[in-house]
Order: sequence, then C-alpha cells, then structure tokens
Amino acid sequence: MNLVSLETPCLVLDKKKVRANITKMQEHLKDLDVPLRPHGKTVKNIDILKMALSRQAQGITVSTVKEAEYNFKNGIRDIIYAVGIVPIKLNRIISLQEQGAHIVLILDSKQQAEHVAEKAREAGTRIPVLIEIDSDGHRSGLAPDDPFIAELGRIIEEEDGISLRGVLTHAGESYHCKSVEEIKMLSVKERDHAVQAAESLRSCGLASPVVSVGSTPTAVFAEDLTGVTEVRAGVFMFYDLVMSGLGVCSVDEIALSVLASVIGHQKDRSWIIIDAGWTALSKDRGTAEQTIDQGFGLVCDIEGRVIPDLLVSEVNQEHGIIIRRGGGTIEWDRFPVGTKVRVLPNHACATSEMHERYTVVDAGSEVTDIIPRIRGW
Amino acid sequence: MNLVSLETPCLVLDKKKVRANITKMQEHLKDLDVPLRPHGKTVKNIDILKMALSRQAQGITVSTVKEAEYNFKNGIRDIIYAVGIVPIKLNRIISLQEQGAHIVLILDSKQQAEHVAEKAREAGTRIPVLIEIDSDGHRSGLAPDDPFIAELGRIIEEEDGISLRGVLTHAGESYHCKSVEEIKMLSVKERDHAVQAAESLRSCGLASPVVSVGSTPTAVFAEDLTGVTEVRAGVFMFYDLVMSGLGVCSVDEIALSVLASVIGHQKDRSWIIIDAGWTALSKDRGTAEQTIDQGFGLVCDIEGRVIPDLLVSEVNQEHGIIIRRGGGTIEWDRFPVGTKVRVLPNHACATSEMHERYTVVDAGSEVTDIIPRIRGW
Repeated sequence: MNLVSLETPCLVLDKKKVRANITKMQEHLKDLDVPLRPHGKTVKNIDILKMALSRQAQGITVSTVKEAEYNFKNGIRDIIYAVGIVPIKLNRIISLQEQGAHIVLILDSKQQAEHVAEKAREAGTRIPVLIEIDSDGHRSGLAPDDPFIAELGRIIEEEDGISLRGVLTHAGESYHCKSVEEIKMLSVKERDHAVQAAESLRSCGLASPVVSVGSTPTAVFAEDLTGVTEVRAGVFMFYDLVMSGLGVCSVDEIALSVLASVIGHQKDRSWIIIDAGWTALSKDRGTAEQTIDQGFGLVCDIEGRVIPDLLVSEVNQEHGIIIRRGGGTIEWDRFPVGTKVRVLPNHACATSEMHERYTVVDAGSEVTDIIPRIRGW
Repeated sequence: MNLVSLETPCLVLDKKKVRANITKMQEHLKDLDVPLRPHGKTVKNIDILKMALSRQAQGITVSTVKEAEYNFKNGIRDIIYAVGIVPIKLNRIISLQEQGAHIVLILDSKQQAEHVAEKAREAGTRIPVLIEIDSDGHRSGLAPDDPFIAELGRIIEEEDGISLRGVLTHAGESYHCKSVEEIKMLSVKERDHAVQAAESLRSCGLASPVVSVGSTPTAVFAEDLTGVTEVRAGVFMFYDLVMSGLGVCSVDEIALSVLASVIGHQKDRSWIIIDAGWTALSKDRGTAEQTIDQGFGLVCDIEGRVIPDLLVSEVNQEHGIIIRRGGGTIEWDRFPVGTKVRVLPNHACATSEMHERYTVVDAGSEVTDIIPRIRGW
C-alpha cells in the first residue's frame, strides 16, 4: 500500500529517520558516557519507545499515569513519572508498583512528600521519589540553591513510606533559545544545577544516586555531563520545525508529517485548501517566536520532499490554508483537487497527540505498518 | 460521585448550561422562522447533539466522515458533510448513502463535481451537493458574485450521478470580529451573499431549495434571515471565552471546563502549577487577539464559579501555570497541593477535541453521567 491510496488526514512516521535520530542520540550520549532514559511523551507507542531503549540499561520517562500503565503492560519496568504527583493519582501508581513496576515519582514540596508517604504507608509499601529542581525558571521545582532542597530531602528520609532517590530537572526553556550558543549555555546550567542540588543533599548525608537531566536541545548540545546519571529526552526521535529552527536538527531529519489532500483553491488569494486543520496539525505555533516562522507547518510532496516556500499559513478545524512564503503564486497544475501533500509539524508532541495511530513508511511513500498511539491520562 | 473524587485532568460538561444554551438558540431561530441544523463538530456526542435536534425538523451538519458515520449509526439520517469533498472519501459517503443516509456534500469546483459524479455513476447512485459560497474571504467557496456559480450549477445538473441542492456558506470571520455591530453586519452579509448565490442559480433556471448559512456569532446576532432555509451552528451548545469576548454569550453561560489539580507552587513568581497542560486545554489562543486576553483559560473553583482574575498564563504538555491577572499575589492557603480547579476554555471545539469523554454535571459538582466523545476522521 502507498500513501497515495490512504484517506486523509493521517499521521505519517518515517521509520528510517526515526532509527537514524535514535542512533545519533544514543551514540552522542555514549560518547558522553551517560545513559539515555527516553521520554515516551512524544511517541506514546511501545515499539518506537523500545527502539530508543535498545542498547540502554535504563528505563523510561513518562508524562501521564496512562503511559506508565501502557508501557509497563508492554514490558518496561523502570519508569519515572515526571510530573509533580498529586494524591488522587497514587492509587494507580501503587497498583503499578504492586504488579512489579519500579516507578519513581517527582515532587518539590513537603505537602507532596507527606501525601505520598501517607498513601504508601496505608498500602504497606514504599515509593521512591526524586526532588524536582527548577534549572531555568521554566515551571515546577526548587531553585538549585534553595536550602529547602536539603530540608525536603531530610523530610523524605524521615518519613516511612517514601524514599529519596535523588534529583531531576528539565531545561524546558531550551525550546525558546535564540542560538546554539544559548542552548549550550543552558545545557551547562542544567547539568550544574542538577549536580549542585544533588551535592546539597549529599552534603547533609543524604544519598542522591540519581541526577537526572534532559530536554532534547540541551541533550544534543551537551559536551560534558560529568555528575549526571541519565538524560531524559523524547522529541529527538521525531524532531520537528521548532527543533530545526533551534539548530538542533535539519528539516530533513524530521520523521513526522501529516498526510493531507487538496480540497480546493482560492486562486485570487493564491491559497491551496487542504483537509488538515488544527484537529490534524494541532494549534501549536512554536516557530512563531523563531527567526523563521513556519506557520502551521512546511509542505512536502507525498514522498516527503520539502516543496520550497510552501507552508500552512492558517488552520480551521478541518481546513488548512497553504500559501507561498512571501506571497508568490502557486503552480496550480501541480496541485489539482485530490493531490496529496505532507505537512511537517511545528511541534511533534502536539501534532502526534491529535492522532490515534501512525502510518509507518520506511522512507518514501510505501506504507510498511500501521501502529497505535495512546492518548489521555 | 463528586468532581472532588475524580482523577485529573478531565473534561467537565455542565448539562444545565448546555440545555439553556440550546433552548435559547432554538427560540431565537424560531422567532426568525428558520430551522436550526446543529453542527456536530463541537460536541461529537450523540446525546448532546440530539438535544439540539429536538423540536427541529432538519438534520445535522458534520465536519468529518467519521462524525457522519457515528451520528447515522445513532439514528440521524439527514447530514451535511460541510468540508469540500475529495475523491478518496467518496467510498464511505456512498456506503452511508446505501445504508439509508441522506448525505449532502459541498464543493466549489468543476473538478470536484466531476469526481463526485463519476464515483456515484460507478456506484449506480446520485449524490446531492451544495455549492460552497465564500461570504467573507475566510477559506473555501466561490465569491457570491462569481459568474462561475451558475456555470457550476449547470455542470452539476448536466452530469449524471450528482444533483444540485443549493448553496451553503459559513461566516467564519465572525470569530475575529471586534464588536457586536461588526458581527451584525457580517450576519447580514452572510445572509445576503447566500441568497444572492441562490438567486444566481435560480435566474438560470436552476433550483436552489437549500440556502444554508451559519456560525454561532452570526446566528446569535441575526435579526432577519429572509431567504435562508437553515442555520448551522455548533459552538453555541457549549460556548467559550472567545464567544464571551465577542459578546455572543456571558462567561456564566460557558458549559465546558477542564478539571485540574494543583500540583505545586512557585511562590517567588506567584505561580500555581496544575496538571492540565496543552494535552488537556489545547494550544488554542483565540482570545489573544481580543480586548481581554484570557491566556489559556479562566480559572473557576470546583463548583464552576469564576475566581476573579486567575487565569492559565502558560501551558506545557502536562503542566499549566496559573497567575493572577496583572501580577497580583495568590491566596496560597486557598490552593494547597491537590486542590481542584476548573478551567474555562478559549475555544470549546479545540479543548473538547483533546478528550475522549465528558464528565457531566447538572450544575455544581455532582457527577450525573460520563458520556463518550468521538475523535478522528
């Protein structure tokens, strides 16, 4: 079967590119002597995630309890649930643990530590946790120099039902960097802050066997990860236009695209209308703040070759509008009604989240597989 | 069961508000003597859609073939698929027709008409179509004064396998109006352009029994729909912050919200962190262009009462950041870890698309039902 005979819109994954992206990251981290703990939040498919786990001793990272359950059911035991824990989710965490999962939680407050400890004691178990460190002011976590890190460490160690495994940080601001130099500096900062936080635990006699960092940009540009015990990254398997805009990958390395059909033309306005709107592409405008704004995505032919200067400039629920960058005219003969194009996404996580399956190609347009993708919590 | 005991994030629907919103629209259109053909693209649930169909003689509108299949299977026969048709989707359309659906397509080109006719002839059937009119430069359709409307009408009438039912337009630009007066003017324009296009068919001896218009804003502010035979609207069942920003509804009428839990605080930055990111809220920033930018949504307590000035200012995949508008401080005691809040969405269609089910309340926070929501194509 070829993409040409598929209904649209649908999500296409180029497995050859995924394989190359994974190998490249694995080799890079091997050079730095730090294991990869792939993040499953982008892929949400066990086969692809296992590709990223190959040759790695470590487990995985997830962003939802549902991912943890799904990946555990499919044979992965070692899991970090990398979103601050709330009491309402602990029953499912404990159930996973009882089934044999080694699941680690993250937190940054005494309240959370007490909730986890209390629930674990009720269940007669002990739950390992990492203290979340905020290395870049991006969202959750304690500042790396916050004296409360050591205090929280002690609280955790003193409570029954909870045990301290170390520290974790995520340099999410790396998605908003303006240059490779800036990403490199943030990568150093992410490492330094994680190591500093771990040291503040150790200096109080607390153990911190885990020093976990990770974002795709900081991982790619890391040059020295001394003191770090694992790198979490997820987007690198697929890459996207935000990543290529950052200089983290080339456009050719982007493995994900949305297959769409031309449904009409507005020749007066030089618009091609396709049947991929925000339900297929997502509303992510991650490249809007970059030097080159890619609209809602770059347009490729059915083989995945970029068509120079064509991009999706606007989306409605089920419609996308393709224009030529700079307002040039379109070669109408090339895009009759029914023509199929592929749109490269701004943000692979957001675009893939709109779909329930991947149509897999191994380069080109021949379909080799259709694999599921989970959603929800 | 109460919302307080639910896992988060999840999508909450206040059925009392839905009922009131539907009744209000039905009565308004009854006053204007035009039937409602509700659009199923927002709800994607048969029970809610049937509430909107009650006391209406007409059928429904859908934005995907999957919605058509789902609603037909659940007893609705009369369906307009309101996205320009491409050949690849015709097999499923014809299959629906063979099962007894009265399904009407839309198109705006000779190519599409020929594709539909050819496929229908092969299947030994005839497919009814509407010519799409572009009343406001928003996306697809022929300009209302385009002489090609009549020519396309003739092409359709002369082809075996396809039959002309009339014209359809959608004033999508109404979502971007800056005042109620502007919406009222667009509502008049939408009607006039649809009627003008129908007249251009009739003046050539072609029938146009259907003159279909619709968007929630133009429907709400329509004062005279003479010549129009049906109004399509969908968002009005739920409403959202974009609609309240337009003056189409009040914030209190918004029936949809996302239930989230507080997972942490960044007191230095006056941030509350919740477990609803863009996977739960969507990346829609529809209010960004309005007078009052609501960020990624307004924050309510668990009963659905707006907490003045709290809004979600930023989202990551599974994290949302709540701030006080204008940067004021937060009453921290009110929001300990685990506290539940409800976030009103910018765009009901986009936020509900991120979920697989609705948790239904009938005002307040007592759960009365959990109902599914379909996705995909």
